[in-house]
Amino acid sequence: IVTVSASAALVEKGSFRHFMEKEVHEQPESCQRTFSAYLDPVAQSVRADIKAGIDFSKITRLQIIACGTAYYAGSIARYAFEKIAGLPVDVEVASEFRYRTPAMTPGTLAIAVSQSGETADTLAALRWCKDQGLMTAAVVNVHTSTMAREADLLWPTHAGPEIGVASTKAFTAQLSALLSLVVCAAAQRGRITKAQEAHYVQTLLESPGLIAEALGMNADIVRMTYELSKARDVIYLGRGDMYPLALEGALKLKEISYIHAEGYAAGELKHGPIALIDEKTPVVVIAPDDDLFEKTASNVQEVAARGGRVIMITNVPGKVPTLSGDAAKSLKVIKAPDCDPFIAALVYSVPIQLLAYHTAVHKGTDVDQPRNLAKSVTVE
Amino acid sequence: IVTVSASAALVEKGSFRHFMEKEVHEQPESCQRTFSAYLDPVAQSVRADIKAGIDFSKITRLQIIACGTAYYAGSIARYAFEKIAGLPVDVEVASEFRYRTPAMTPGTLAIAVSQSGETADTLAALRWCKDQGLMTAAVVNVHTSTMAREADLLWPTHAGPEIGVASTKAFTAQLSALLSLVVCAAAQRGRITKAQEAHYVQTLLESPGLIAEALGMNADIVRMTYELSKARDVIYLGRGDMYPLALEGALKLKEISYIHAEGYAAGELKHGPIALIDEKTPVVVIAPDDDLFEKTASNVQEVAARGGRVIMITNVPGKVPTLSGDAAKSLKVIKAPDCDPFIAALVYSVPIQLLAYHTAVHKGTDVDQPRNLAKSVTVE
Repeated sequence: IVTVSASAALVEKGSFRHFMEKEVHEQPESCQRTFSAYLDPVAQSVRADIKAGIDFSKITRLQIIACGTAYYAGSIARYAFEKIAGLPVDVEVASEFRYRTPAMTPGTLAIAVSQSGETADTLAALRWCKDQGLMTAAVVNVHTSTMAREADLLWPTHAGPEIGVASTKAFTAQLSALLSLVVCAAAQRGRITKAQEAHYVQTLLESPGLIAEALGMNADIVRMTYELSKARDVIYLGRGDMYPLALEGALKLKEISYIHAEGYAAGELKHGPIALIDEKTPVVVIAPDDDLFEKTASNVQEVAARGGRVIMITNVPGKVPTLSGDAAKSLKVIKAPDCDPFIAALVYSVPIQLLAYHTAVHKGTDVDQPRNLAKSVTVE
Repeated sequence: IVTVSASAALVEKGSFRHFMEKEVHEQPESCQRTFSAYLDPVAQSVRADIKAGIDFSKITRLQIIACGTAYYAGSIARYAFEKIAGLPVDVEVASEFRYRTPAMTPGTLAIAVSQSGETADTLAALRWCKDQGLMTAAVVNVHTSTMAREADLLWPTHAGPEIGVASTKAFTAQLSALLSLVVCAAAQRGRITKAQEAHYVQTLLESPGLIAEALGMNADIVRMTYELSKARDVIYLGRGDMYPLALEGALKLKEISYIHAEGYAAGELKHGPIALIDEKTPVVVIAPDDDLFEKTASNVQEVAARGGRVIMITNVPGKVPTLSGDAAKSLKVIKAPDCDPFIAALVYSVPIQLLAYHTAVHKGTDVDQPRNLAKSVTVE
């Protein structure tokens, strides 16, 4: 274990009530710092030193290994790696990966994702991959950590020290690094033109501004969470890369408010979880305006028709289906900033984090030090 | 949609209170019937006609696509395909797979798993794979279904008509077919000897007897579920292939008792969900005596130390850690039959199903027709 030397200025809460709140608000800067390490704003491309360090055209497959929140960052990145870079990706929880006998494909790059770089299961999985002769990489926030030292490639995040036990800015920094690497992979594999690379880089570089705009949703979310804090159970729904973000949203709420929240792929609703829906179990739906919006909106109607209360987070409130009678009253919409679907996970992270944060504050739980949890799980 | 002609004898409940109870008890026969279609008990090998229909040595990868319970059957089989046959497997929820742009590897065999063979999302995913030029297979219980007709290969299950909306015997029949195919793949890929093939076949053929033995756990489970039926939230934990079985157990409880149950990989407990643990949220732990038993037992201690109530399902009650004080009272053990880890998912399916069933009966919910759910989801 390496003791992180953080100056007093960095670890004070300033005007914020909790470290978590402060860290949520730091995300425009922490993502910007991370992008600076991967993207060249002048050349409108992935930085030359990043491209020199890896050749994704020689990689046949990615195996992302992580735990908890980092696992969801990897799961979100998977959608983009497959769609934009045409690179097949497996993502697995490290405690499962390390104890089974996975069948690995030659040419696979194993990527460990961990804030601390010391997570016991992830480190063991990384070492196993190295022993198999696979190339390895570490996406870590502590650049002097064991994973940083042992992996063949170090892909740092620049979130700065994270004090809140529930990860926020480390998560979006992981997304920032991984989405930058998607653009690198797509360019090196000849899946995008120079002009497309410039477009993706521009989109990523605009996201800190949109994250700052999303922080403006704070007041709306405070109002919404008075009611949410009374719930004992909450369901989170999303499709596409909003599905792992729904899982992350549910984890955040669990961790700090002790409300039993569970994320689900919206399309799986009919295959079981819809039986749970009643007026006591609110449903949080993450639905940016993309190809899947209509599908998700139709899931919202199903929930409302069964008496469920819905909180919908979307940039297109005008496209949300009109409901009649009691159902209309049970649907609440929070307006998010418009953004390119490529960076939606970054932008929608903010309302998801604020929803958990304010719910916990209303409940009066110990936000920065939730019961039973440690910041880094360095034992099994 | 094909109307299944089922004789009156097959669709009567007999001495059982619900179709679900009847179907749980039919599993020794339904699994046996399914094994008969795949295994040759005289030659102690996979049947010659099954081996003639496929050459797994030419397959580079499996892509299993399914929804709900069938998705968990596929997820369990994945562990065995990778470990025993050395064949890489991806398993994905059909509603996610069909709407993203997955990067497929040439030589991949796509396997759709569905009781009805009509599940809308799974069918769409199967057709997409076919359009990509991939070989396709269907593991279905309705042998005249659309998937059965459209897939290149039909791998039937022989569960017989399933009336209960919550799937039980169709699930274990899917496991029976898939585990038989694991042995086929391992033999064709030269990963096991003739003698090992005979051993695996023998183990599978013994499982209906062990499933029958597991039905003897009924009385113990009835006692345990009086308390469980008062819970509003339950966590299910497992490691290895018991992890997807934990997900399936949680889904069963959700579907018919409306209790918010959630399955988790036991190793992920420390990364968030342990914050939920208190005396009001019982934890069901599935822990057969295998390589992972000690790890799972240590998770049980963590839960008990935080005041959580635990129901542990295991064949080795003597190996369960001794707890002191209040923690000792909060730990309850249900003894399962001894079995080979290869078939543990089949055997432990029974207590998981009975736990959901009796909890729902105590609560007085409509077990065979739970609210909001349809037997086959043939629309999106």
